[in-house]
Amino acid sequence: MFRKILFPTDFSEGACRAVEKFEKSNEMAVGEVILLHVVDEGIVEELMNGYSMLYDDVGVELNAVEKELKAKALKKLQERVDRVKKAFGTERVKPVVRFGFPWEEIVKVAEEEDVSLIVLPSHGKMGFSRELFGSTAMRVLKKTKRPVLMIKTHEEG
Amino acid sequence: MFRKILFPTDFSEGACRAVEKFEKSNEMAVGEVILLHVVDEGIVEELMNGYSMLYDDVGVELNAVEKELKAKALKKLQERVDRVKKAFGTERVKPVVRFGFPWEEIVKVAEEEDVSLIVLPSHGKMGFSRELFGSTAMRVLKKTKRPVLMIKTHEEG
Repeated sequence: MFRKILFPTDFSEGACRAVEKFEKSNEMAVGEVILLHVVDEGIVEELMNGYSMLYDDVGVELNAVEKELKAKALKKLQERVDRVKKAFGTERVKPVVRFGFPWEEIVKVAEEEDVSLIVLPSHGKMGFSRELFGSTAMRVLKKTKRPVLMIKTHEEG
Repeated sequence: MFRKILFPTDFSEGACRAVEKFEKSNEMAVGEVILLHVVDEGIVEELMNGYSMLYDDVGVELNAVEKELKAKALKKLQERVDRVKKAFGTERVKPVVRFGFPWEEIVKVAEEEDVSLIVLPSHGKMGFSRELFGSTAMRVLKKTKRPVLMIKTHEEG
């Protein structure tokens, strides 16, 4: 029985497939799931830079955008809670939203919540498919002290 | 309960620590363990090339060396079976020795044995510490279709 797992999701297909694979294999008992989404600070800043170049008369504040994006992400997580409860076979699912760099927040939340396992999909935005260095998964693997379960979410060739 | 796990070992400190960490966390029930060692074909060939340059009158055949190294590795695995039984909490531990490139054999044995999980230490010869690209762990992660559990065996900083 894994006491407490951290399951970060970027709402991508890869993350959804990881949930399905997890459910299908049905080999891990889980006590509690921290369902995490990290609003990517880097992407938000780039978008805002682009936006302010196009419409420099419109004042948009990073704080306001951060707040709105976090609220939307929380809503999306909450919509997924029942699915995650079913897949991981536990009633204890806690949605958490953070703002920052995904790998960094994943490593931080794993410590703060004292999880016994981090579950990551091997593909998708967080995985390995596009790039190796710099991928969220790779950085989490390098930086965390916690065990990491990589779930293959993409069949090759 | 993980039906069947593949636990490759290179007899390094990293691999030993992974066993300890696994035992300490005590969160995974395991049905069967395939305890694998891969005699590294690349290293053996390099050693033999060096050897034949130094002593070119001595005829040593690769096949004979392969056979001897495999026998020695099997003996070493057998000595570890009791420890692994205890750590993984199962009586079913099957030692397997292969000759080839470690990442390739790990991926192959995972398929042949239809394991439900591959457990890898994050550091040591098989892990990430020295190099990122080309490490055994990285290649296994990229190539296998099976879930991979990375166990951190080295504390950073």
